[in-house]
Amino acid sequence: MSKKGEAYTAEGVAAAKPSRASVGRLSLYLRRLEMLQREGISKVSSRLLGEALGVTDAQVRKDLAYLGNLGHPGIGYAAPKLIAAIRRVLGIDRDWPTALVGVGNLARALLRYQGFVERGFRFVALFDTDPAKIGQTIEGLTVHALDEMPVVLAATKAELGVLTVPSQAAQSVAEALAAAGIRGVLNFTPQVLRLPASVRVVSVDLTVQLEQLAFLVQLGSEETTR
Amino acid sequence: MSKKGEAYTAEGVAAAKPSRASVGRLSLYLRRLEMLQREGISKVSSRLLGEALGVTDAQVRKDLAYLGNLGHPGIGYAAPKLIAAIRRVLGIDRDWPTALVGVGNLARALLRYQGFVERGFRFVALFDTDPAKIGQTIEGLTVHALDEMPVVLAATKAELGVLTVPSQAAQSVAEALAAAGIRGVLNFTPQVLRLPASVRVVSVDLTVQLEQLAFLVQLGSEETTR
Repeated sequence: MSKKGEAYTAEGVAAAKPSRASVGRLSLYLRRLEMLQREGISKVSSRLLGEALGVTDAQVRKDLAYLGNLGHPGIGYAAPKLIAAIRRVLGIDRDWPTALVGVGNLARALLRYQGFVERGFRFVALFDTDPAKIGQTIEGLTVHALDEMPVVLAATKAELGVLTVPSQAAQSVAEALAAAGIRGVLNFTPQVLRLPASVRVVSVDLTVQLEQLAFLVQLGSEETTR
Repeated sequence: MSKKGEAYTAEGVAAAKPSRASVGRLSLYLRRLEMLQREGISKVSSRLLGEALGVTDAQVRKDLAYLGNLGHPGIGYAAPKLIAAIRRVLGIDRDWPTALVGVGNLARALLRYQGFVERGFRFVALFDTDPAKIGQTIEGLTVHALDEMPVVLAATKAELGVLTVPSQAAQSVAEALAAAGIRGVLNFTPQVLRLPASVRVVSVDLTVQLEQLAFLVQLGSEETTR
């Protein structure tokens, strides 16, 4: 048996599930690799990958070990192979038809966000409860009523759902998405969702990032005045 | 000398700077503590704090050690004291006057987001380059032209800046914010910002969360079909 968190790279041996933090870093390595590749760099060391992100060489190597035996001692990683491997592991070497519920300002911003499409997250269906919005076309998509959800999700084959509804509606809408076959929910509400274990939830809390910034700014002024 | 990452809690001994991941978790513990307190729970164990977040007891205790000697073996933490300590360490036991540049859909969503105000992040100034937007009032704030930045930021005492401009404008606007005395930038653009070391930057990349969701959904179906 493997120790928790340890990754075996030999074929046929199941690698341990990486931590959420490690998966988050894979996304960041991918951004960095794509940037380096645009700059014409095709061989990258764990140091080069880690330094812009404030991650140690050792942590980079540990995170990437999950992908298999891709590094070459003294040479580093081949950027194109590493990019393909990360995209495969993250599940973004394919398209993810995505539905969105709650067509407010945040939703409109997300619908226009090029980053999602570039990563294969393709919005295919919109839902809202507001009669004034239902039937409207936004970014090329029709806004549907919630009771059309089962039919529309089946027709569009949406697998992921983005939740940008008011907090008090979050749980019931998430349950409706789950009941209609959605397999993962990106939750922008502060509500903690209780869903069947087969439906994955990732919550985005923008205050966490702003708090991190406040912490760094405060820490900086403490260091200066010390 | 203390080992890197180790926190000493005795008075007068400087605690090591916690990692970004640890700071992020402090925000999440705070959310959880506030929720538990609303449910009438005033004593919490590291297990109770960690389990909803998928963090081990040991990691919780390590993260909280930075706050000082607050835990009692066999009893746990007193929620009100722990909440106050986390708010103090994160720097959110005070107000943060915040400016925002780039008044699009994302900005409008952020301006209406109650979570920011509740945490002390108070928007005090808006900027845009669009002549049609300059002079407008949005959520009670006037939209100013970029060249008014030094005057407006001095008048409003803004310390943090939120960047919701198009990618290609990000670096120059961030430099203008830094030149006008802003100490921290929350960057919603995919652009990597180069700013003086005295100005802290936290970048928000929403695709990272969506990729994490895709990973979990894919992992789930692999586990099911195995």
